[in-house]
Amino acid sequence: MKKISIAGATGYTGIELLRLLVKHPEVEIVTLTAESHAGKNIADIAPSLKGWVDQTLVKLSPELATNCDVLFLALPHTTSMQNVPELLKGGCKIIDLSADYRLHDAKVYTDWYKTPHLNPEIIKQAVYGLPELHRDTIKQAQLVANPGCYPTSAILALAPFMQQDWADAQSIIIDSKSGVSGAGRKLRQSTHFCEANESVTAYGLGEHRHTPEIEQELSGLEGSDITVSFSPHLMPMTRGMLSTAYVNLKKNVTRDALHAHFVKFYKNERFVRVLEVGQYANTAHVAGSNFCDIGVQVDTRNQRAIVTSAIDNLMKGASSQAIQNMNLMLGIDETTGLDAPPLFP
Amino acid sequence: MKKISIAGATGYTGIELLRLLVKHPEVEIVTLTAESHAGKNIADIAPSLKGWVDQTLVKLSPELATNCDVLFLALPHTTSMQNVPELLKGGCKIIDLSADYRLHDAKVYTDWYKTPHLNPEIIKQAVYGLPELHRDTIKQAQLVANPGCYPTSAILALAPFMQQDWADAQSIIIDSKSGVSGAGRKLRQSTHFCEANESVTAYGLGEHRHTPEIEQELSGLEGSDITVSFSPHLMPMTRGMLSTAYVNLKKNVTRDALHAHFVKFYKNERFVRVLEVGQYANTAHVAGSNFCDIGVQVDTRNQRAIVTSAIDNLMKGASSQAIQNMNLMLGIDETTGLDAPPLFP
Amino acid sequence: MKKISIAGATGYTGIELLRLLVKHPEVEIVTLTAESHAGKNIADIAPSLKGWVDQTLVKLSPELATNCDVLFLALPHTTSMQNVPELLKGGCKIIDLSADYRLHDAKVYTDWYKTPHLNPEIIKQAVYGLPELHRDTIKQAQLVANPGCYPTSAILALAPFMQQDWADAQSIIIDSKSGVSGAGRKLRQSTHFCEANESVTAYGLGEHRHTPEIEQELSGLEGSDITVSFSPHLMPMTRGMLSTAYVNLKKNVTRDALHAHFVKFYKNERFVRVLEVGQYANTAHVAGSNFCDIGVQVDTRNQRAIVTSAIDNLMKGASSQAIQNMNLMLGIDETTGLDAPPLFP
Amino acid sequence: MKKISIAGATGYTGIELLRLLVKHPEVEIVTLTAESHAGKNIADIAPSLKGWVDQTLVKLSPELATNCDVLFLALPHTTSMQNVPELLKGGCKIIDLSADYRLHDAKVYTDWYKTPHLNPEIIKQAVYGLPELHRDTIKQAQLVANPGCYPTSAILALAPFMQQDWADAQSIIIDSKSGVSGAGRKLRQSTHFCEANESVTAYGLGEHRHTPEIEQELSGLEGSDITVSFSPHLMPMTRGMLSTAYVNLKKNVTRDALHAHFVKFYKNERFVRVLEVGQYANTAHVAGSNFCDIGVQVDTRNQRAIVTSAIDNLMKGASSQAIQNMNLMLGIDETTGLDAPPLFP
Repeated sequence: MKKISIAGATGYTGIELLRLLVKHPEVEIVTLTAESHAGKNIADIAPSLKGWVDQTLVKLSPELATNCDVLFLALPHTTSMQNVPELLKGGCKIIDLSADYRLHDAKVYTDWYKTPHLNPEIIKQAVYGLPELHRDTIKQAQLVANPGCYPTSAILALAPFMQQDWADAQSIIIDSKSGVSGAGRKLRQSTHFCEANESVTAYGLGEHRHTPEIEQELSGLEGSDITVSFSPHLMPMTRGMLSTAYVNLKKNVTRDALHAHFVKFYKNERFVRVLEVGQYANTAHVAGSNFCDIGVQVDTRNQRAIVTSAIDNLMKGASSQAIQNMNLMLGIDETTGLDAPPLFP
Repeated sequence: MKKISIAGATGYTGIELLRLLVKHPEVEIVTLTAESHAGKNIADIAPSLKGWVDQTLVKLSPELATNCDVLFLALPHTTSMQNVPELLKGGCKIIDLSADYRLHDAKVYTDWYKTPHLNPEIIKQAVYGLPELHRDTIKQAQLVANPGCYPTSAILALAPFMQQDWADAQSIIIDSKSGVSGAGRKLRQSTHFCEANESVTAYGLGEHRHTPEIEQELSGLEGSDITVSFSPHLMPMTRGMLSTAYVNLKKNVTRDALHAHFVKFYKNERFVRVLEVGQYANTAHVAGSNFCDIGVQVDTRNQRAIVTSAIDNLMKGASSQAIQNMNLMLGIDETTGLDAPPLFP
Repeated sequence: MKKISIAGATGYTGIELLRLLVKHPEVEIVTLTAESHAGKNIADIAPSLKGWVDQTLVKLSPELATNCDVLFLALPHTTSMQNVPELLKGGCKIIDLSADYRLHDAKVYTDWYKTPHLNPEIIKQAVYGLPELHRDTIKQAQLVANPGCYPTSAILALAPFMQQDWADAQSIIIDSKSGVSGAGRKLRQSTHFCEANESVTAYGLGEHRHTPEIEQELSGLEGSDITVSFSPHLMPMTRGMLSTAYVNLKKNVTRDALHAHFVKFYKNERFVRVLEVGQYANTAHVAGSNFCDIGVQVDTRNQRAIVTSAIDNLMKGASSQAIQNMNLMLGIDETTGLDAPPLFP
Repeated sequence: MKKISIAGATGYTGIELLRLLVKHPEVEIVTLTAESHAGKNIADIAPSLKGWVDQTLVKLSPELATNCDVLFLALPHTTSMQNVPELLKGGCKIIDLSADYRLHDAKVYTDWYKTPHLNPEIIKQAVYGLPELHRDTIKQAQLVANPGCYPTSAILALAPFMQQDWADAQSIIIDSKSGVSGAGRKLRQSTHFCEANESVTAYGLGEHRHTPEIEQELSGLEGSDITVSFSPHLMPMTRGMLSTAYVNLKKNVTRDALHAHFVKFYKNERFVRVLEVGQYANTAHVAGSNFCDIGVQVDTRNQRAIVTSAIDNLMKGASSQAIQNMNLMLGIDETTGLDAPPLFP
């Protein structure tokens, strides 16, 4: 049994990690941290886990990294990079769910996060943890930067267009719709029930911090710089994320041909389900699972592909993807503890 | 007091018309029809109206048009055009909330609605009832085709770009998000609470029947044919519609300049609120009102305008806009019975 | 035009007061206070009011009471009683939406609110503002204590049982279900969207502070002390409150007889709608209105009346009831500015 | 591997059975029926199961019972009893999720379901499938009547009061709140998204068909006839059920004593979690799991116990409880395939 610890165990991604890890056949939980709840039992902060995890929360310390095999960091960005250098010395593998090591270029990080990166030299050893793209390097990594939820849904929808001469990689628009849990458990006015309920709104248009992450990965696949328009929206639901991606097509590509291309592209991916021709991705059909459903359409009047991708933002968009990375890093089957159907309705 | 009747009074738009008309100072309700509920009292089918409307529902008949000044048709499409010719002879003014008379070209109607138009000659006398664009002709009309909800939100977001040399009118993408009430009160699997709740999905991408309506109006403003990509999505909320519209900009247009253009464009429109620079339209801030809120953004990295517009789909997207048309047709103040703040939260 | 001011204008009850007052034909808004948002424009804090109220928020001060006819206090409890003595000297009429002057007995206040009452002598001049019970004294009052939302729904459901020899006034159980807006706009974990959504839970069973308020009013009607079991629950919706009240019946009272008694009891009350025999109160049918809907049932197998009452907690449970009180205090028609149908769906 | 079939596989309980059974280590799926969808693939009707179950739906026939070990009937009531006699002859074990065999007395069935029971002689061999009460007889049964969702939550909340001299077993009131999925996947006006959303209402007060089921089981435990008041309510959420049960206490029973009694009563039950003193059951903390959470309170001012119990109505209230019964009937560990934490948030 591998020993696992979590820093930041009481947020939504921390609780979701625990829900999955307590059923994972190859791991055991060692230490859980939570700065503001230290000294309390995790089950008092996350009552769903009563009877499953009976541990007292502690504060984050360097020792955390010395008595476990894998350490998940479910911390706010900037907090991660303040701690990672010291924690890496502890020798454990680290999966960071924050944004701090996702961008390969420290300057890009600074531009979008408005703060200097504290340890750009460590960025180099971090691997971007999207298994469908970087499976082999993830297996070798000591530090994995777990992707953001928006980038996960957007990149999986768009990767099949890269290096295709019939697609205009510079025309990409991504219109994404996220459930409220994507904003975390912290209190803010916009996530008050009465303000998020019965409300649909955009935010951060053209400015959201997940933009460079999407561009980095698509550019890497394409082999040249890609700039996208990325538009996040907040939806009145707890879990789920739908991205609607628009790509101009250069040639007369039919829906059937595009669909066949997607099916082939993802034929070996357990957690990507390319839907039948004519079907649309729906967040309700992936809730509680590690699946990404993809629907392929073509607006033939405008020679434009429209791809819809649905994930559970707390699962494939965060915690279950982190465990997928853990499995790879531990050399065990990638689907261990993750291969279960979504919860519907 | 003008006499008003409603055909199809028990659907959501019919109930909403009644909610507004019972408080309207210049009208009285005469006859209410509902095919399946004929013989019942409206308040038993719409308990919110108990104490407000105490009428027995009847079936639709030609006499409906002979004892009222204005007749609202809140009927399914094709049902309207089966009845309108006979009803027009009755002499009353008609406001049709169905799609049957919105398109000026009967062939376009047939292409999108997959059924021949029964009376193309009547199309010519119908006026498209978007007051912000066609106020003067609405005033003279006997038959007004009330706009669809999606077109209302899309056209108001995009009209200011027409005939502007700095905007590429052929690059338009409209990504719209609608509350479930837009699908009507009729039962279907997709609007079952358990299937719509906690669910976000696209539908009819590139194929939705509101597309030609948007194109007709924008083309009319531009003075040449415009083709758009229109993508409707279903949201887990009852009321509200947000459209996110993308337009490529030819020159270096700043957000401030674009915002100033919108403010000027709508400066005389009581029911369009152009938000401050940096604010996003939110469906929760227009619920229960006739307002359309518009937020103006520019993605400077991609030289692309992104406009968000929010309406209440049952109000400005249907019933209150119909009453705005009625006011114009009756020669009374356009805002009568409509000028009230939204319900928040 | 009477001059109106509001202390605490940016909470949900403050915003709801403004929504109603800007349409009220006999009043004008003078001053709005908000401690944390002083200096900002109200429309930036409550965007639904854009175009309706264009005022800069100020801090609370004694002068507030000297330049208006009616002052609404939408403040937290204890804050009200710190300010009311000074404000009363200003000469205006005061409607306090907090709990500070609802209980006639300062000791009961202290027992339930765990803090001494600061000015028990002022309690005596305060009138409990439930118009259906205290219309005449409200008209004469300078200080009205606006009822809590739970007490409003419970008392209206139970008042008809008082002083009836066929009802056991000591057997009362009230099981209430409230929308989240009842908890206010302040941030707390339990009202985070992701924790309130898809969640139903009880809280404060046998301990909620609205209990003595219900008991005081029912005891007053009965003429002897009544003790009730009151059980509040939090529902995953924004607005609305349903109370299910249980009363043991002494004699063989039929549902029809009980219904007839309720109809007669409320026959002159514009804002109480006793539903038909067999109908149940539903929060969706009173949303956005000042109505209280009441459904009357009898569990004949157990000789027990079960009454359901539905209100909009922000309206009849708070702000529209406060305006009903204002109308009475100003000597104008009680229904002015309030008599409109609910918003459905 | 045991062979399992499901009649009525496309409803919510059928889909939920499948979600659990595909991960159950000791069973395989053989046949799935659905009258209206026969000939289609289950994954087209339940897209969440894509990649998990690839079967063509067939119509119900007697052969269904001859090629499986356990047959689940997720059929409407009366449909079950039309088929069970023939199916039993097939030799398989049957778990009936309908109401047809839950009541031991055919006359009571007829009184509440308004239709004669077709095979009262078979009622005798049916066992009421609440494992916490009838574990041993379930193990021996060929036919198990799976409990209703309301009875499951109510009986588990109330069983500890039976045969206790300090509790008044004749004073029981159960006020239950159910998510919409309890009404099934069939279309009806009350479960249309726009009518159930933002709506709380009671229904069937004193008349609901689950009443005799609760009374039968409590009477069995008490050893004498018990009559209860049972009040179901519909909540605006998909999954979850909270029952608030009221019991008058004869002696001065403290909350701590009552809590200790509950802890002891359920100390060997894996799927009943008695919460800490002062905690309330919350449907959000059991979603997606087989757990029943129970919170114990005492209203000391009225000498009344108030117990809250929360279940997921599709799980412990239907499908996972059915699998718990299956495990018992197959002689395998009762928790197999069921022992997983709830999904939160």
